[in-house]
Amino acid sequence: MERIPILRMGELLLVTIQVDMHDRLATVLKDDLANRISTTRARGVLIDISALDMVDSFIARMFGDIAQMGRVMDAETALVGMQPSVAITLAEMGVALSGVRTALNVEKGMALLRARRDEERADDDAPAQ
Amino acid sequence: MERIPILRMGELLLVTIQVDMHDRLATVLKDDLANRISTTRARGVLIDISALDMVDSFIARMFGDIAQMGRVMDAETALVGMQPSVAITLAEMGVALSGVRTALNVEKGMALLRARRDEERADDDAPAQ
Repeated sequence: MERIPILRMGELLLVTIQVDMHDRLATVLKDDLANRISTTRARGVLIDISALDMVDSFIARMFGDIAQMGRVMDAETALVGMQPSVAITLAEMGVALSGVRTALNVEKGMALLRARRDEERADDDAPAQ
Repeated sequence: MERIPILRMGELLLVTIQVDMHDRLATVLKDDLANRISTTRARGVLIDISALDMVDSFIARMFGDIAQMGRVMDAETALVGMQPSVAITLAEMGVALSGVRTALNVEKGMALLRARRDEERADDDAPAQ
């Protein structure tokens, strides 16, 4: 399998990671996501990692890169479905996942991204002080 | 990877197939789906196959089995994201995918399953003739 599918759901894009990421696949995923955010004008990206038993520092950095890239394109990224053992390992390794929002599952991740969106819209509508 | 993740989104379950299915994985997926339909009371199952370059008769039969299983648990199944080349091959092989609904992408699949749901609810609300 050469590509990880990116599913569009309204304003959000959903990526389910099921395979071990290597350098090339990670690069392809980042490029694909950038293109899809641009063409679909998505406002958020959900990355489901419930199938991953292990997240090493390479993958963790990739999530940070994707979140950073999304942010400059005005799309927030949420990482969802992390297994407890993965969270423990990341904490033990001292990996901070800085700049990456997390949620327990896809539904909560969607709610998180939508809440942020609504907040911003409310800010836009508020009269200038 | 031993399992294909099943994501819950409201009344629907979403499965993205990215790996080649073999017998054991197909059996595990069917069992997992049956359990998840039961525990979440899902009313629909979306199976995204946009990552599959090839669907052989074994996989096609598996989709039929899942749709059949879902139906007896009152959950409709929709197969989404089929690549044009896959559709051509299935037609050439004479595989009918009987009993399986299809849609172009996840969004259209969701709309399809929700429309069916609303239809049924309208029927339930209608006065008995």
